[in-house]
Amino acid sequence: MVSESVSPLAPEWLVAPADANGLASLVWPRSASRDNDGMLVIAGARADDLVREFGTPVVVIDEHDARSRAAETLAAFDAAASRHGGSARVYYAGKVFMSADVARWMTAEGLNIDVCSRGELETALAAGTDPARIGFHGNNKSLSELERAVTVGVGTIIVDSAIEIERLDAITRRHGRTQRVLVRVRSGVHADTHSFLATAHEDQKFGFSLAEGEQAAARIRETEHVEFIGLHCHIGSQIFGVAGFRESATRLLEVHARLLESGDVPVLNLGGGFGIAYTSVDDPADIRDLADGIVDAVAEECDRRGIPLPILAFEPGRSIFGPAGVTLYEVGTTKPITVETPSGSAQRLYVSVDGGMSDNARPALYGAQFSARIASRTSSADPALVRVVGMHCESGDIVVDNEYLPGDVTPGDLLAVPSTGAYTVALSSNYNHVPRPPVVAVRDGAARVIIRGEQIEDLLARDAGITRGVPAHHEGEK
Amino acid sequence: MVSESVSPLAPEWLVAPADANGLASLVWPRSASRDNDGMLVIAGARADDLVREFGTPVVVIDEHDARSRAAETLAAFDAAASRHGGSARVYYAGKVFMSADVARWMTAEGLNIDVCSRGELETALAAGTDPARIGFHGNNKSLSELERAVTVGVGTIIVDSAIEIERLDAITRRHGRTQRVLVRVRSGVHADTHSFLATAHEDQKFGFSLAEGEQAAARIRETEHVEFIGLHCHIGSQIFGVAGFRESATRLLEVHARLLESGDVPVLNLGGGFGIAYTSVDDPADIRDLADGIVDAVAEECDRRGIPLPILAFEPGRSIFGPAGVTLYEVGTTKPITVETPSGSAQRLYVSVDGGMSDNARPALYGAQFSARIASRTSSADPALVRVVGMHCESGDIVVDNEYLPGDVTPGDLLAVPSTGAYTVALSSNYNHVPRPPVVAVRDGAARVIIRGEQIEDLLARDAGITRGVPAHHEGEK
Repeated sequence: MVSESVSPLAPEWLVAPADANGLASLVWPRSASRDNDGMLVIAGARADDLVREFGTPVVVIDEHDARSRAAETLAAFDAAASRHGGSARVYYAGKVFMSADVARWMTAEGLNIDVCSRGELETALAAGTDPARIGFHGNNKSLSELERAVTVGVGTIIVDSAIEIERLDAITRRHGRTQRVLVRVRSGVHADTHSFLATAHEDQKFGFSLAEGEQAAARIRETEHVEFIGLHCHIGSQIFGVAGFRESATRLLEVHARLLESGDVPVLNLGGGFGIAYTSVDDPADIRDLADGIVDAVAEECDRRGIPLPILAFEPGRSIFGPAGVTLYEVGTTKPITVETPSGSAQRLYVSVDGGMSDNARPALYGAQFSARIASRTSSADPALVRVVGMHCESGDIVVDNEYLPGDVTPGDLLAVPSTGAYTVALSSNYNHVPRPPVVAVRDGAARVIIRGEQIEDLLARDAGITRGVPAHHEGEK
Repeated sequence: MVSESVSPLAPEWLVAPADANGLASLVWPRSASRDNDGMLVIAGARADDLVREFGTPVVVIDEHDARSRAAETLAAFDAAASRHGGSARVYYAGKVFMSADVARWMTAEGLNIDVCSRGELETALAAGTDPARIGFHGNNKSLSELERAVTVGVGTIIVDSAIEIERLDAITRRHGRTQRVLVRVRSGVHADTHSFLATAHEDQKFGFSLAEGEQAAARIRETEHVEFIGLHCHIGSQIFGVAGFRESATRLLEVHARLLESGDVPVLNLGGGFGIAYTSVDDPADIRDLADGIVDAVAEECDRRGIPLPILAFEPGRSIFGPAGVTLYEVGTTKPITVETPSGSAQRLYVSVDGGMSDNARPALYGAQFSARIASRTSSADPALVRVVGMHCESGDIVVDNEYLPGDVTPGDLLAVPSTGAYTVALSSNYNHVPRPPVVAVRDGAARVIIRGEQIEDLLARDAGITRGVPAHHEGEK
């Protein structure tokens, strides 16, 4: 039965499902289910009710899903470190999705907050985050950003360049305040999903080489008010294994150990990058296995060197917030397109939704794969290979490149795309003058807006040619 | 001298310049020059004065440059068509950059306006554009968009799917209004810069196959109020030659000729896609040569078929607005990075600016190349290979991947990136909670804001966790 549905246009990795209504457990929020009507339900809220209240597109966040993953991540690293007599800290990487409510959720679960700009910092502060629990990243923090961070008492600044040390030295002296800093280094390890690459040098903008990082730490120790607390390294994103972290930590600990000879080095921050499932073929490790694997490797290397296990810090974002998000769209048009293949012509069903690369740039930016399901009903129609596309005036405006959906998918259906919690709202644009959708948190069946959706009026309000009223004197003249 | 500056890290196409202060004429607005201080001047306005008034980053548009390219484009196609006894229409493709002022500039120069969403339509209308001069595109126009377009009297709707014909039939009957439409078809021709590819079928979301398009036209002719006026095809973007247009037009005219046997077909719309120079090695054809080449080919094919030359319509955007834009940044940090090459270690100078992929997503989205110059001074320092990067928390946040700048480029310098008029502001985001820059039009030394820049307060205003005031009852609880 199923094999008859396999399209010659489908990529090899995409398995034709027996049931194109199913919700693969790793891809959807934990609460996702279908009720007796076949309607998608997230945290007790029906998709049709959400759409009736908030329209389409709408980004739906399962609050408990995000919070429980945050809590589990902290518990996993804490447990792993405790077994070696150490402790761990987890920073939520705000860049994947930042809002005041989310900052509150994360700190309530015991996490700290990573920010990388003035805007993220102000959001975290407006949420009531204790500044001491904020880490501040960035390769080009402005003087005013650094001054603001120092004066509000941000816990850690992750120093990224030599000039930043001098800037912090000047700012801390001027204000008479001590600022704890990590030194970001490039370990030469790049990790991505299943493998990693290790080189001596890295051709990217962040941080110091290991040798430069050691010098930077020494320079910081010469300052009066800037306090070196350890090294930081981030090796990549969407990582499924521990080998890259192990190799990177080993390299960092060599420098860390030498720095211990001339002072305290209480912290080692290994960054984030833990991967999630975007489609049913992705199989990320359980966070407990990742935590155990990474922490055990660090502890082993510390034992070998005869140095104490530092406080281990991590900066996950996607693995906490990604699976909590589902974007709901409405199908507007469907169109079968005949495509030539080596074995003859085949049809691909294009399914157009009322959003696209403006609310989810990841397919266009990274060639990212997503999955999709009809949200508003189940169907026993044979699965058909579809490409979910947006409504933007660009052929690369693809939401889900390849998916099997019930072949009777039709205009008016609600379509749900899961795993959209991370890097979708954060990267959203007004391309083609399309307003950005609202973000709604659901919990125990109740929904509330956490980021207000835009109206066309919001866009026109930035257009000075409209707001300044009558055309200026030279309009229309040549 | 110059050869000593050549970096082993530079791509082959990048020529080490004798003078890393020069402004390549095709890449910069026509008015761009340096004054006696070495300061970049655009349309009579000094870069430092613009930055003092508007801050950095700021997108500067040379109004006269954009308007003159618009006028020249219309004149070129008009002249070419006139020589064959025909006429031409030019639609400015609003998706590349849309604002009320720009819509006014374009219509004042005799162009029509292409829109592809409700937001673009409302902007054009708010600018006072005669609706009859608007063309409305989109693969998934909503019912409310179609209804709005019909009722305001949009000149042409470009029909993209079979279901849209039925929707338009219903809407026009309900309102008793006639709506002129083009039928968008896929000619099977994909063109890109120097070459094109032609297939029988195209695997993309827009339009009808040629055979389906012929049926669609026939169906439209059966309706009471939807009026078929011709075929539309868009073959690609950043195209330098005429061969792709010629092949596509030949294919369209076969269908066009058959449709003439049963009714009027007054228009043929060949879309846009004319390329521009992003770096000094790009050498796009003069618009007059392109117009002559395309129109002559169409006229020749019409002669061969013994049919009248239709009104020829074109939809350029980038070639009109792209070269008019320059983004000004301030350099925040510089960092030499050692990279291994097959012939030993080499250094790349990373130059960080106070913007990045939030204000120009094209390098990250398309691997697009740009160029750069120090705006605030000239320098006799030896050229050094640099990579201009943004301030975002992402290693792919690159503004200019490879460029030679004076090797003494330093924090505080103003950096100008030209050719940023098209698809930069349009695609801009608030990634990392970074406010979007203002867009400023300059003319005769005077500058005025055409799109208001954002403040962090604008971002916080959408954050319901801040605007709803005190945390809701369940904040912080588990």
